[in-house]
Amino acid sequence: MTASAVTTASDDSTLDGFHRGAFHLVQPQRGHRAGMDAMMLAASVPGSFKGRLADLGAGAGAAGLAVAARCGGATVALVERDPEMAGYARRSIVHEANAALRDRASVIEADVTLTGKARIAAGLADGAFDFALMNPPFNAAADRPSPDALRRSAHVMEEGLFERWLRTAAAIVRPRGGISVIARPGSLPEILAAMQRRFGGAQVLPIHPRAHEPAIRIVVRGFRSSRAGLTLMPALVVHDPTGNRFSPHTDAINNGRATLFGD
Amino acid sequence: MTASAVTTASDDSTLDGFHRGAFHLVQPQRGHRAGMDAMMLAASVPGSFKGRLADLGAGAGAAGLAVAARCGGATVALVERDPEMAGYARRSIVHEANAALRDRASVIEADVTLTGKARIAAGLADGAFDFALMNPPFNAAADRPSPDALRRSAHVMEEGLFERWLRTAAAIVRPRGGISVIARPGSLPEILAAMQRRFGGAQVLPIHPRAHEPAIRIVVRGFRSSRAGLTLMPALVVHDPTGNRFSPHTDAINNGRATLFGD
Repeated sequence: MTASAVTTASDDSTLDGFHRGAFHLVQPQRGHRAGMDAMMLAASVPGSFKGRLADLGAGAGAAGLAVAARCGGATVALVERDPEMAGYARRSIVHEANAALRDRASVIEADVTLTGKARIAAGLADGAFDFALMNPPFNAAADRPSPDALRRSAHVMEEGLFERWLRTAAAIVRPRGGISVIARPGSLPEILAAMQRRFGGAQVLPIHPRAHEPAIRIVVRGFRSSRAGLTLMPALVVHDPTGNRFSPHTDAINNGRATLFGD
Repeated sequence: MTASAVTTASDDSTLDGFHRGAFHLVQPQRGHRAGMDAMMLAASVPGSFKGRLADLGAGAGAAGLAVAARCGGATVALVERDPEMAGYARRSIVHEANAALRDRASVIEADVTLTGKARIAAGLADGAFDFALMNPPFNAAADRPSPDALRRSAHVMEEGLFERWLRTAAAIVRPRGGISVIARPGSLPEILAAMQRRFGGAQVLPIHPRAHEPAIRIVVRGFRSSRAGLTLMPALVVHDPTGNRFSPHTDAINNGRATLFGD
């Protein structure tokens, strides 16, 4: 996935190329580093997308910048509460390697779960976005915690997290606008419950490491105010039947050459 | 699927062989006839299953009798509220073609949604079963109704149906006992919500007509009092990439030679 990873001289960050060099991330050498989850989430946005997109829980900005790189008519807001990660997102935006995207990307340093006036004051106004991406902290609290503090902060899941994140998404996305969330399959009941009466037309897309193994991730997409029912999409199988190489389709999605939902 | 379909001389019923003749169904020539849904549902029961199984919404008894035919240690109760379909289930049980199963199958003519003493009086006692199968009426009320009354009765879905069916299943299945339900993917949110605090260890298995098409059915299995999370299983793809033939794996499941969850 990483086209280049160069440790800069001045600090502990690296500069990593994505989408075959179409954009780059400045991110910490240790801690939560962007990977395939962010690329899969970004690939859920239709190829024809134009307008304002919020990347909720953006980290260093991988998913949002991937959309900006692939969709020329997209303007992206990278929403991140952690000051250190928000700093990396700002450095990513201003880096010369991302000069082509710079005017269409910004950082909002804010907690996604803010409500009411505090949310609006932070820059997350009602109906202000056409699409919201969500890559919430994955690991349930019961999971073994990671030894690294930054990593833990990005991975430990809180009770009711999807409910709070989808409440914010419902507030900031305009009618008929879209949302996508990437999560573990075990979070599907909570995600579907939180989407009720907020988003319709849910499309659930399972991601399996291999065809005979259970899914390790789901991407769930939905549309604000839609009354359509749930669709269970053909799964993405990451690896070829033998070996550890990505399938050609996975590689294309991962590099911004194909979309996850084929639209 | 049908090994033999012979119209009997006396009425409008047919005698249809399943599982390559391992059991037969007496069922109406018109109306709701058993098919692949019932065989998929039956195939969700592990090969090692022993004990009492309730087939809720049994119709002429296809799913329950399929389990009895495949699992020698299974005793099945076919629960059906429609007097005419319950009559076909009784005729299926006593038919000479099912002599090997007769002692392990019975009919309970009752509405699955009965509660309290009425449910118990009907023969659906608390914790009396080791497994429950559910093939509830599929079509949402918004769907175009079928012109045939019997067919409509079996297919038109009522509001809150999964909640009521899973409430009964939770009452009649013993701790650690299992349930399986087959439904349309659009019912997944309601099914998962109704399983909350009743069943855990949910396993969702999508059934796709072809690899590139959305799922047309889901089979959801769960276990009473389990605290395990949800698993999204590898999907079953019914047809080969080209043509309308069943894949060999689908054919094996459909004929009682393989199980849906591989256990």
